[in-house]
Formats: sequence, C-alpha cells, structure tokens
Amino acid sequence: MNVTVRGRTKHYRTVAFDSEQRAVQLIEQRLLPHEFKIVATRDFRETAAAIREMVVRGAGAIGATAAYGLAQGVLAFRGADQRRFSRHVETVFQTLKAARPTAVDPVNAMNGVRAAMRAGETVAERQALAVAAAEEFANEDVQHCRAIGRHGAGLIRQGMKILTHCNAGWLAFVDIGTATAPMFAAQARGKRFHVFCDETRPRSQGATLTAWELAQHGISHQIIADDAAGHLMQRGEIDLVIVGSDRTLGRTGEVANKIGTYTKAVLARRHGIPFYVAIPLSTIDWNLKRGFDIPIEERGEHEVLGAWGTEPGSKSGRIYVRVANPMSGARNPGFDVTPPDLITGIITPAGIFQARELWHRRQELGFAG
Amino acid sequence: MNVTVRGRTKHYRTVAFDSEQRAVQLIEQRLLPHEFKIVATRDFRETAAAIREMVVRGAGAIGATAAYGLAQGVLAFRGADQRRFSRHVETVFQTLKAARPTAVDPVNAMNGVRAAMRAGETVAERQALAVAAAEEFANEDVQHCRAIGRHGAGLIRQGMKILTHCNAGWLAFVDIGTATAPMFAAQARGKRFHVFCDETRPRSQGATLTAWELAQHGISHQIIADDAAGHLMQRGEIDLVIVGSDRTLGRTGEVANKIGTYTKAVLARRHGIPFYVAIPLSTIDWNLKRGFDIPIEERGEHEVLGAWGTEPGSKSGRIYVRVANPMSGARNPGFDVTPPDLITGIITPAGIFQARELWHRRQELGFAG
Repeated sequence: MNVTVRGRTKHYRTVAFDSEQRAVQLIEQRLLPHEFKIVATRDFRETAAAIREMVVRGAGAIGATAAYGLAQGVLAFRGADQRRFSRHVETVFQTLKAARPTAVDPVNAMNGVRAAMRAGETVAERQALAVAAAEEFANEDVQHCRAIGRHGAGLIRQGMKILTHCNAGWLAFVDIGTATAPMFAAQARGKRFHVFCDETRPRSQGATLTAWELAQHGISHQIIADDAAGHLMQRGEIDLVIVGSDRTLGRTGEVANKIGTYTKAVLARRHGIPFYVAIPLSTIDWNLKRGFDIPIEERGEHEVLGAWGTEPGSKSGRIYVRVANPMSGARNPGFDVTPPDLITGIITPAGIFQARELWHRRQELGFAG
Repeated sequence: MNVTVRGRTKHYRTVAFDSEQRAVQLIEQRLLPHEFKIVATRDFRETAAAIREMVVRGAGAIGATAAYGLAQGVLAFRGADQRRFSRHVETVFQTLKAARPTAVDPVNAMNGVRAAMRAGETVAERQALAVAAAEEFANEDVQHCRAIGRHGAGLIRQGMKILTHCNAGWLAFVDIGTATAPMFAAQARGKRFHVFCDETRPRSQGATLTAWELAQHGISHQIIADDAAGHLMQRGEIDLVIVGSDRTLGRTGEVANKIGTYTKAVLARRHGIPFYVAIPLSTIDWNLKRGFDIPIEERGEHEVLGAWGTEPGSKSGRIYVRVANPMSGARNPGFDVTPPDLITGIITPAGIFQARELWHRRQELGFAG
C-alpha cells in the first residue's frame, strides 16, 4: 500500500525481494507507528532473525518472508554439487522454520518453494525456480487479499461506522490485508465511512498498526478502549464489524482470533449488527474437529501488567512502563474462539460464505485432502 | 481497611478528620499502587484542591471529604457574629462544591451537615454540630458498606472465581467499599476464592487500585485485559461477577458504571453467570426515568491514546507514555448503562433486590420523596 513519509508517497509491500542484491526488504514493524523504516536482510540467517525478533509479523507476511528467505539462502549456494546443494537447502529451511516454531505459514510457504525446485535439474535451474516460486507465493497472497477486498467492499455502505479488532491489515500480509481489504476497496470505490479501532490490549496492535494503516490511507477512524464497543453499539454507533482470523476450522466454522474477538461477536449479536471475518485460505484448518481443541497461547504476564509507548517530548523511542500494582500478577490468554452462530459471514478470496458452509465449499476453497 | 507498609500493618480509612488539628487526612490515591502515603489538608481550600486534583476519588470518599472539608472550614471561623458566620459557611460550601461540579455525593453530604447545624444556636454550637454531622456521614458510609458485605458474602462460595471491573473498593469509599465488600466479608468468614480484576482501560483502576486492595488483604487475584473475560467465561473460569455503580435508576433498575460494565453483563448473560451490582444508597437516582438520559461523560482522548506507569528500574515515578499512532484520535466514553434484565441482583445496605424491584422497595431504601 502507499506510505507517505515527509510528504512523499510511495508504494511499499510489507515484504519484498531484491534478487540481484539477494536482499529481503522488510518494513521494520517494531518501530511503527512512531517511525517508518525499510530494513534489508543480506542472508537467510538475518532473515530468520528478522522473523524471530518480530521485525515482521502476521500470518501472510511471515509466510512470504520465509519463502523469500529460502530463495535467498538457495541463491547464495556456490557450485554444482547436487548433494551439497540439497544439504544446504535443508539447513536454510530448518533455520527459517525454527525462527517461529508454532507458526504454520512459513512452513507451508517454504514447502511450496521446495516442491517447485524439484522441476529443475541443475543447481542453477533450481535456484531460479526457488526465486520464482517465492515471488509467486507473495503475489498469490496479494491476489487473495485483493479478492477479499472485492467481495467484502459490497458490505460497506456510504456513511457506515465499522468496528475492527487487532491488526489484520496489510502489515500482517504482503499487501492490502484481510479485515482492512474491504475498507481499502470501498474507499477506492468512493465510499466514505468511519472505522472504530479497538485498542487491542495488551499489545495494542489496533491503536498502533491498524490506526497507522488507516491514517496513512486517509480513512476516517478513532481508537477506542476495548471495553467501549458495547456502549457504542447500544447507542447505535456501530453498523458493521469486520475482523481477521488466525485459524478458522473448515469443519465447524469456528474462528480463532486475537483475544476480544469473541466478546465483540457476542455484543454484535445482541445488537443485531453484522459480524464478518475476513480470512486468507492459508488460515483454514481442515483437520481439527472442535474449536475447544485449538491451543490458546497463554502469553507473558508483563504484557497485561504494563504498556509500551513513547514519552512525549523525549527522543528515547519506545519504552515499557509498569501500569499495574507491583504485587499483582496477570492472566494473559492471547486468543479466543468465536462459534459460527455468531458469525454473519466469512469473507474469503473465493467469496463470502456462511461459517458452517466452509466444509461444503472445500473444493472452491482449495482443500486438497 | 488494614494496610501493610514495610512489614507494619495498620488500619486506615480512605478519609478521616482530626478535629483538634482541623486536618482532613487522605490516602494520596494518585501515588497508588506504587507508593502508600497519607496527606493532610490544613484548611478547606486545600481540601477542595485535593478533591479537584483527585488525591481522593470515588463516590463515598469524596462525599465524606466534602463533609469533613465543610466542618474544617466551619471550625476555622473566629467570632460569634451569626451573619458573618453564615456567609463564611456559604463560601466554604461553594468552594468544595466547585471542586467536582458534576458529582452529587459532595453536595448531598454537605447538605446533611448544613441541615444538622441548624439545631445549634451559637456559632460554637453549630461548629460542634458540623463536626459531629460530618463524622456521622463518614460512619454511615462505613456502616452501609459493611451491610453490603454482610448481604453479599453469601453469594461467594468456597473456591469461586469472581470477576470485578474498575474500582468499587474501599479506596472509593470511607472504608470497605461496595463491590469488594462481599469479598472482604467472605474472606473474614474463612472462604477462599479467586478474583479476576479487569484492567479497566483507559485509566486502569482495576490493575492499579483494585489489585492493590486485594493484594493488601491477601485475596488471590489476577489482572486480565478487559477483553479476556469473554474467553474465561467460555472456558468455565468465571462463576460470579460483582461490580459497583456510579448511578442506579431507582425507577427502572438501570445501572450506570465505568465503561465496560455493560459488556461484562452481556457476556455473563450469554454464559448464565450471575451478575451483581453493589451500591450504596447515595448512588440511587430516584428521579430520572430512562437510562438513555444519563449523561455519558466523553473524556479526553489522551487517556485512550496512552498509559500511565513507572519505568522499571527508574526512580522518576509515574509517567505518561503515548501508545497509539501519533496521527490518530480517540473516542473515550467514560461510562455505560446496563439494563435491569442483565442484572441478577442489586446488593444494597438493606438487602439484595431485583433491579426492577428498587422502586417498590423505595421506603426501605431511604427514598424520602
């Protein structure tokens, strides 16, 4: 998407690859929203470190970063010895995989690259195929998000007030994003609307990343405390909810997403407000049979007990402050699960479906099983 | 309640009056939870400043502070001239009233003190009556909170997990508190239970004040992000919700309280979890006919856009950090209104009642109209 820095507007992807320089280019997300900076990793170990240290985050974005990182590592191989080459590829794969061990997207993306390489015979052919496959993975992510935008834009009517939660924007993907895609597409069609961004404690991705994206694209928005949505719904100030998803169960239509998503779905139902989930195909889990079995990560309590921010007037960058009582601890579940009966529709690259309908649509949705 | 500072335990009220020194003694709440300190105001203007600058906050606590402040001002009068004395009393009253213009408790408390003074004839008699009436107001606040504890303790069973929101603890009253009163009473009866404190963004009163109170009294507790309660309810980890109230409509049973209360009530209903509101009699509004007419304060956006905390390892005390995107604004409604159909019961000093039943119980609840 376009970013304006000091008055100059330019298009950036969250992740890109310069095959001549063998450099993966990343938006340094840890500096946002206070600073916009592109960093380049020069070899696959640096790329793995960027994933591990959360320079880049978000399902689609780390998938593409791993795919590019694998191509980058493969290109660095010198010589024609097939056996040494294979061992090298394996090292690169494992290094990148270990950077975010619980995520599924990097592994899926790299498996795709590795499969494409098999069509080549020489090392040089396989290197070229790896680069092309990584590029294709990234482009497909963009196409999927664009299709989500196309399908979802029709849900947004002139003057609507829309609630979103956490960040399922273009920073979480290669470009465009999922929950934000219908907004960008509706804006491009000339519609005006207002977005309420849940702050999304404890890590505040709504207040930082989503608000930054919307501000960059001139979309009218306000940040609200996570507990304010119920009141706004009660007063008729929210017309539509769109969120993303970390994992959607293809068999049941249950949606795991950032903690608080379920609460917004319950509130939307009470007020008769449509609640949509925008998902890329890669987050559909076709195996798991019960949402209750989705492991809910319990994260460190320091996230709940404090906050990260910048001191006004200080040049020292982001610091962590302890907000809570020093003698108290915290519980910090990172995700929750929303049942299909609370979901008005799932916006996929293949169209908008009922949550319970995903399994019947599995062929359209690319389920190969 | 008891406070332990550097290993020494002592009983403190949130507000007290030393009539010999003519000093109002207050817990400096702006330093909590990081520092416990008692400050004394030496005249009524200092007391008004303490209310205005939020050294003391909370309905019952500012009511008692204003009552004591009025007695303090009245005591400072020298002479026997009745007309000059009346003018002086009026000045004190107006100065204290102006310290928190939208609050009703200081005015009610001071009206009581002023009415009591009429029984005296000389200035000296009226001065003595003012002190006695202020003391009686404070003692009655304590008795009311104790009665709430007595009635509410029976709701808490051994091993329960209880959710509370914001701070309706003893720091908001002269002692004991409302939402916390049943917890302290149940603890005194030997019951063990666990409390989840909603952080209560944007001002984090749950993470700071309520957590501090519970920690001081050895009650097992954890702070959670405001959006985590839904997930915990879904997993069967919350058995009971108890909150306070800023204003309860006697005619309809609607409850205005800190933003987020309504959301917790909606979630509790979905999960069949009992939802109780503990209120002192002073917060019942017998006049208003619709909850929709309760004015909802829209507070400054900086509260949502940042947080107050201490930098670990720094000696500089609490600082404000900007969390959100610098280009974005915020909406910040401070309160919301929970309808009676979501409320299992209202815990009052006179017993536990259905929310809709308050009007029929108005004699018991001290409605003089």
